[in-house]
Amino acid sequence: MGYGLRKEVLGLEMYVAGKPISEVKRELGLTEVIKLASNENPLGCSPKVKQALKETIEEASLYPDASNYELKMAIAKNIGVKTSQVFCGTGSDLLIRVICSTLLNPGDESIMAEVTFSRYDAGTKLMGGKSILVPMKDNGLDIDKMVDSITDKTKIIWLCNPNNPTGTIFRKDDLERIIDRIPENVIVIMDEAYIEYVTDKEYPDSIALLDKYPNMIILRTFSKAYGLAGLRCGYGIANENMVKYFNTVAGPFDVNLFAQKAAVAALQDKEYLRTVQDTNKAGKDYLYEEFKKLGLEYIETNANFIMVSSKIDDKILFNELLRKGIIIRPGYLLGMPGWLRVTIGTNKQNEQFVKALKEILDEQLIINN
Amino acid sequence: MGYGLRKEVLGLEMYVAGKPISEVKRELGLTEVIKLASNENPLGCSPKVKQALKETIEEASLYPDASNYELKMAIAKNIGVKTSQVFCGTGSDLLIRVICSTLLNPGDESIMAEVTFSRYDAGTKLMGGKSILVPMKDNGLDIDKMVDSITDKTKIIWLCNPNNPTGTIFRKDDLERIIDRIPENVIVIMDEAYIEYVTDKEYPDSIALLDKYPNMIILRTFSKAYGLAGLRCGYGIANENMVKYFNTVAGPFDVNLFAQKAAVAALQDKEYLRTVQDTNKAGKDYLYEEFKKLGLEYIETNANFIMVSSKIDDKILFNELLRKGIIIRPGYLLGMPGWLRVTIGTNKQNEQFVKALKEILDEQLIINN
Repeated sequence: MGYGLRKEVLGLEMYVAGKPISEVKRELGLTEVIKLASNENPLGCSPKVKQALKETIEEASLYPDASNYELKMAIAKNIGVKTSQVFCGTGSDLLIRVICSTLLNPGDESIMAEVTFSRYDAGTKLMGGKSILVPMKDNGLDIDKMVDSITDKTKIIWLCNPNNPTGTIFRKDDLERIIDRIPENVIVIMDEAYIEYVTDKEYPDSIALLDKYPNMIILRTFSKAYGLAGLRCGYGIANENMVKYFNTVAGPFDVNLFAQKAAVAALQDKEYLRTVQDTNKAGKDYLYEEFKKLGLEYIETNANFIMVSSKIDDKILFNELLRKGIIIRPGYLLGMPGWLRVTIGTNKQNEQFVKALKEILDEQLIINN
Repeated sequence: MGYGLRKEVLGLEMYVAGKPISEVKRELGLTEVIKLASNENPLGCSPKVKQALKETIEEASLYPDASNYELKMAIAKNIGVKTSQVFCGTGSDLLIRVICSTLLNPGDESIMAEVTFSRYDAGTKLMGGKSILVPMKDNGLDIDKMVDSITDKTKIIWLCNPNNPTGTIFRKDDLERIIDRIPENVIVIMDEAYIEYVTDKEYPDSIALLDKYPNMIILRTFSKAYGLAGLRCGYGIANENMVKYFNTVAGPFDVNLFAQKAAVAALQDKEYLRTVQDTNKAGKDYLYEEFKKLGLEYIETNANFIMVSSKIDDKILFNELLRKGIIIRPGYLLGMPGWLRVTIGTNKQNEQFVKALKEILDEQLIINN
């Protein structure tokens, strides 16, 4: 291109985001659109958050606190760690970039599942690292194979739990089986963006392992169960010595003022979080039943989305649903053609989705027969 | 540290932000604090922005538009470029990191003034580049010397205009004198974060040069004159081929939903911007007069801050002002010991600052005599 771009940049692919509602309305001339594509919280955020946001409006011209003082205090208190173990960023997305920028030298290897959150690969490649993709086992992470893949070049192993986009988890005993096989110079990232939705009682307690494993980093977010996707706030928990470096690499004002205030308020509304969890559980059970009736295979989930087989070409199904004003995430974009990922919505949204899905499948199967 | 951190990270320094009002109140037990430290807009943001923010609260749980569609449209229309020439980020700060991540290989040189915005150096070092610091001339950029410093290793030259923290500009004829001496493989960054405050009629029209110089990138921000520092939204304008790569390196959701909506609304209120400009001009004239009366040397500014000599040790002056509830930026943190940088505030804030400054200088000069 003549600009002398880094060769690592030339190989990067643009992230394909779920289509925003406004864009679908604009393109298709629709007035009502349901988005079940980006695992957003269909109940929105807590009324306490809304109040905090309203109160922040008068301060919009002031820089956010570069130290994230109140936010870190609230997070640390909520999960029982020290403030110095917490670091914050513009969503988990930026935290992944910060971690890669801090750790990866050209040629370093970064191990991840073949079907997982795409930003691990993007962050790795940006720093000239090499992504080692480990095939799935029963649609979930094959964590034993992932650990088997560690070489002397390995710098990071990314464990997304629950895994996006499959919704699967590995359990306490799975983690115990592998954790001591990971050398201490390999950083273990436990990406727990969907932890608040987990219903499996054997889900591992990663926080309890932090003291014993200083090479562990836990990532969480306010974008999902707390309903703050629009505000961009994720956080990490790790050994405080490592956190210092992440704070230096991150920009001082990455988490904006509204995000800081909203996140603090979100942590204070436990009742709201329970409603979110209950609604998700009920929606999950409903969708499981309907998928069974439709004869559609699905992957049992511990998150706020379900991977379901599309029966017909997932790109066609995606487009047909779009024409009916429903946005989902087609599997071909996630490394799983023949599937679609649907966010668990409100009861009403789930019903409308199932109705549309039925209509399309009936129609398409007639055409194809 | 045993984590295998990149060597580039070990050399990075933590950014020291202006103290937030809440922190000063907390530490000193003060109830009223005036912050003239971070070049924030003392008038806050436009009422139209406040309305837009209020309307966005109900959408807090939705991801922002990854393409920044409406924001890019509004920016492009406002300055007369194509949407494809615009890229957005979490403040200029993140744009600087994105540019460095896109362009700099280890060993590449990045030329900047000795006293300028510190993030150019941080971004350069993070990517293993080498910062070439060019001494100041008459307290402003020595752009001729900066261009003389170009070698075959030079990848970027950072021209901050008006320069932060000196407030100085280089003029149209200065830029014309040097621009053709910059090889086309060297990227010229025109950081115009403070452009809306410029009063000098000979300030260069960089947008008009974009077509002729595809190696030019212009950076601007909503944090200053538009009063949106809390929301984190900066933008760049460049050749559309280069913009594509910046969009790939940046995260898809770097600019949050509230920032996108607020920035679009801010561009629509031209009247408010004029009030901001008029208030700043009046404050500048007032402070010039008062500094003259106090016998304090100052640097003529085209921004919303003034560098003024501190007469006494700037660290002492900073602390004494702090005790009186006034936060400014001491020169020693900016590479100019013996000076202080004060943001031009409202009339009332300027008066309170001058009053406090007088009291402290009188007292300290008595002690020292």
